[in-house]
Amino acid sequence: MSTSVARVVVCLEEVGAEYERVDIDFAAKEHRASPDHLNRNPFGQFPAFQDGDLLLLESRAIGRYILRKYKTGDVDLLREGNPRDAAMVDMATEVEAHQYTPAISPIVYECIFHPAMRGTPASTKVVDESLEKLRKVLEVYEARLGGGAPPPRLSYFPFTFYFMVTPYAPLFDEYPRVKGWWERLAARPSVRKLAAGMAISPEAIRRSFNG
Amino acid sequence: MSTSVARVVVCLEEVGAEYERVDIDFAAKEHRASPDHLNRNPFGQFPAFQDGDLLLLESRAIGRYILRKYKTGDVDLLREGNPRDAAMVDMATEVEAHQYTPAISPIVYECIFHPAMRGTPASTKVVDESLEKLRKVLEVYEARLGGGAPPPRLSYFPFTFYFMVTPYAPLFDEYPRVKGWWERLAARPSVRKLAAGMAISPEAIRRSFNG
Repeated sequence: MSTSVARVVVCLEEVGAEYERVDIDFAAKEHRASPDHLNRNPFGQFPAFQDGDLLLLESRAIGRYILRKYKTGDVDLLREGNPRDAAMVDMATEVEAHQYTPAISPIVYECIFHPAMRGTPASTKVVDESLEKLRKVLEVYEARLGGGAPPPRLSYFPFTFYFMVTPYAPLFDEYPRVKGWWERLAARPSVRKLAAGMAISPEAIRRSFNG
Repeated sequence: MSTSVARVVVCLEEVGAEYERVDIDFAAKEHRASPDHLNRNPFGQFPAFQDGDLLLLESRAIGRYILRKYKTGDVDLLREGNPRDAAMVDMATEVEAHQYTPAISPIVYECIFHPAMRGTPASTKVVDESLEKLRKVLEVYEARLGGGAPPPRLSYFPFTFYFMVTPYAPLFDEYPRVKGWWERLAARPSVRKLAAGMAISPEAIRRSFNG
């Protein structure tokens, strides 16, 4: 259920890489205490990624590594061979990290994660402020998305997925191009596979956090 | 004096590209009101970058575009031809954005920008909390930086530059490998040229903000 881990795993699924997922004991704070984990991620965060003797952290950097390593003629999401296409990929990723996620993630935390983990109700103040920010971001996307099918942006998947199970999901109906873009992203086999295994119910989320 | 703009311009200087810098009237909030600027950066932020009919925003995405477009055999900071090297570049950039800058930037704002722009003294609470975070990040860097000369990471330049004119600059003396890495970065011609033109004194910062 970690959105950062999902951001990595969806890339592994997208390229069809073989991988092993090693769960950490979140409730026991294994990510902050285990020497093995701290060797992989010295900031005590997750994910931590290992490929042979290469250790990587930061979900978007790991995702890029996977997409680059397993690039084929058919599957080349980074488009690094073409500076203009590559710039659009980079811009979309940076906007996701610095505009979209800061706006959408508090809504997901307030409506999904915190109620399940802490039993606290959503703060309407936090939700309302974040919705206002999210509307501004979606307005920009709506204006910028052309009529065609923009490339998939896998890093948008985890928080959008969780947003779509909040009561505020209908917000996307006001932005038909964005909605269409999300529907195409959600229909990808890699995304569908991840989505099918993600914890949504309060009970499943509690279990995921508490082991 | 904008750290985001500096993050782009240092890349332009690094590759020796010809460019024109178009200042905005910050005090008049031109970045939020001017249709021309909003066409380039619909989030009403800066920088906004134009190359022919290509419009880009988000400083790290723009920097990548510049380094990729002007890549030569001698100057290839992104290393996209080698997945392992490229992953180290990406990881360094993501760690800068998500670990280093959130720790170091509040110190710079409290000690340099806010006193000059608002006449307010630095909040010792904010500074102390940020210093604690920064120490943890620098400890990780110190342990990870090998004995050799790691590649330059231009995106670290703007905030580190300003940190070095705060009273807390001696913190870096406790991390000799990090200090050496910064001294090599600061000695690059591109960085020296930028640094020479950046506003440091309260008077210069006020002028930069108020036109």
